[in-house]
Amino acid sequence: MGKQNKSALNEQEGVSQNEITNTSSIEFIKQKRKTQPSSDDLVAHILQGDITALSRAITLVESKNPSHLEKANTIIKACLPHANNSIRIGITGVPGVGKSTFIETFGTHLTSLGKKVAVLAVDPSSSITKGSILGDKTRMEDLVKNDRAYIRPSASGNSLGGVARKTRETIMLCEAAGFDTIIIETVGVGQSETAVHSMVDFFLLLKLAGAGDGLQGIKRGIMEMADAIAINKADGDNIKKAKLAKVEFGSALHLYPEKSSSWQPKVSICSALHNEGIAEIWELIESYQKLTKANAYFEHKRKEQNKFWLMQTIEDRLKSDFFTNKKIKEALQYQLQLIERNETTPFAAADYLLGL
Amino acid sequence: MGKQNKSALNEQEGVSQNEITNTSSIEFIKQKRKTQPSSDDLVAHILQGDITALSRAITLVESKNPSHLEKANTIIKACLPHANNSIRIGITGVPGVGKSTFIETFGTHLTSLGKKVAVLAVDPSSSITKGSILGDKTRMEDLVKNDRAYIRPSASGNSLGGVARKTRETIMLCEAAGFDTIIIETVGVGQSETAVHSMVDFFLLLKLAGAGDGLQGIKRGIMEMADAIAINKADGDNIKKAKLAKVEFGSALHLYPEKSSSWQPKVSICSALHNEGIAEIWELIESYQKLTKANAYFEHKRKEQNKFWLMQTIEDRLKSDFFTNKKIKEALQYQLQLIERNETTPFAAADYLLGL
Repeated sequence: MGKQNKSALNEQEGVSQNEITNTSSIEFIKQKRKTQPSSDDLVAHILQGDITALSRAITLVESKNPSHLEKANTIIKACLPHANNSIRIGITGVPGVGKSTFIETFGTHLTSLGKKVAVLAVDPSSSITKGSILGDKTRMEDLVKNDRAYIRPSASGNSLGGVARKTRETIMLCEAAGFDTIIIETVGVGQSETAVHSMVDFFLLLKLAGAGDGLQGIKRGIMEMADAIAINKADGDNIKKAKLAKVEFGSALHLYPEKSSSWQPKVSICSALHNEGIAEIWELIESYQKLTKANAYFEHKRKEQNKFWLMQTIEDRLKSDFFTNKKIKEALQYQLQLIERNETTPFAAADYLLGL
Repeated sequence: MGKQNKSALNEQEGVSQNEITNTSSIEFIKQKRKTQPSSDDLVAHILQGDITALSRAITLVESKNPSHLEKANTIIKACLPHANNSIRIGITGVPGVGKSTFIETFGTHLTSLGKKVAVLAVDPSSSITKGSILGDKTRMEDLVKNDRAYIRPSASGNSLGGVARKTRETIMLCEAAGFDTIIIETVGVGQSETAVHSMVDFFLLLKLAGAGDGLQGIKRGIMEMADAIAINKADGDNIKKAKLAKVEFGSALHLYPEKSSSWQPKVSICSALHNEGIAEIWELIESYQKLTKANAYFEHKRKEQNKFWLMQTIEDRLKSDFFTNKKIKEALQYQLQLIERNETTPFAAADYLLGL
């Protein structure tokens, strides 16, 4: 038991350690201990649900080495026809809302229903704080040991765009490896919710009751993205406050125009710690899935997301190619000074820079 | 009286007509009837508040002729040191809310206080509907005839980015010509509110009481942008409904986090038709101006807006240069088909297209 995830954990410390501690794919490793497995080998093992192969492929996706990236692209391409059969759930909430405990209880519930659960994270800050998700992981004690779950620490990277790309490709690899429920957590730094929202089918906002701030504490735009709000820590003295908050959030959600999914966002209360209300949240997600698959919104949204990511990737690259150019960098600083002194217009400055 | 604006009106029908009907700058025209005035001439006259010269410069800004644009840039550069001394007010609201009547009454009130008022419009749809603002203008009967007001129909263009650029440059020209209050109207098509929001100091949302839809009818994100909501047509049987709506919108506005201006958005009721509550809205804008000038947010916001427009212009141009490339256009269609059939990832498709 737990071997697969142990492997995933150790994977962070390097491929060799990963290979040694993982015994579920001994044969595979014996063959490959000395040499890097080929793309074909990795793909074949991923499709069999081999966690070691999955972890290695994800490492390639996350690598900055161009030859690794090329290999990663080959693997992803081969995995593509086997991806997509999942529900992708985004979960966000401020620190302290109990995200780890929620994912632990929620994920364990899903595995008990026979689901295979992958937990990923989009956390652009982790490159600075050196892995807040890693800390979380030690708190997901049961899920880490669970054979039907796979927890992958956040890809690091300087840009949200880069982290998002890696996470998107990791989703596909996990799906190809047979994970049918993908949970993507975000700590809500900067624009990360928007990035996560654009890669998931269902977006869940965790809130606390009586945190004193009510709706005020919700970052702009987050409410509009939520398909459901779960008010966590609804236990003990908190239950009454949670019920009040449910009413408050419920009416706030009604202020927004109807979503094109024709789904009316719901508010739920739960206690992840006491495993209360967790099954109901999954039922709610299932009814969302049922509705949007029936009205074809589910498939439509995924295709739109893919097109969005194509455009987004192109835009990101065009911008980064332009702005990382040394000549542009220097000239831009000067043009910004001119703007600051009101000596040029933004448009004249842009013309000048684009003409360099 | 009204010569200046008559000139502005006729300007649409061509420069020659404009020149003939405008008598306030007879000397200027006599000299220039046969030849195009030089940039220096135009600048000198703009700085004297000459409306004919202003209109001609705006026509250059709006031109698609590269030599006109070059001349426009020279003029704008020379006008820059004289621009910026104004309050820029964005006004939005759905058709039927009474924007024209509001601007007519509001603008007339401002001129009675000694202000010089320019009314511009961002209306990307006008290139399709052939000028809805033109229709509005005939409804602003008093303002059109008002010597202290200048109404300029919406710049046309295929892209919001293009229209926004022209409007931004027109603002500067109007300011250089001595207009101290710039009203920018938008009909709320597509992303035009966002564009207008990013070029004004104060954003006013016009609403109707008892239009039946309440908060539901407000487009996503608009509420968050508003520095004030004015509930128009609060007259006769409508007054009670307007007062109720004021309470409703007031509590909705409180749901949002505090703005970095530290301004708390306000709700006002008015009847533009009966000139009731109009002075109060101007007082409200004045108190916003006082607050944000005292805490330096006003100046800060303008500089941030300029930097935003620099980046936005560069991004727009990078994208349009890329996507209008014929080879890219064709290849993109094919890659989108592959995505639709789930035969490639957005990232692989982007790599391919960027490598062409």
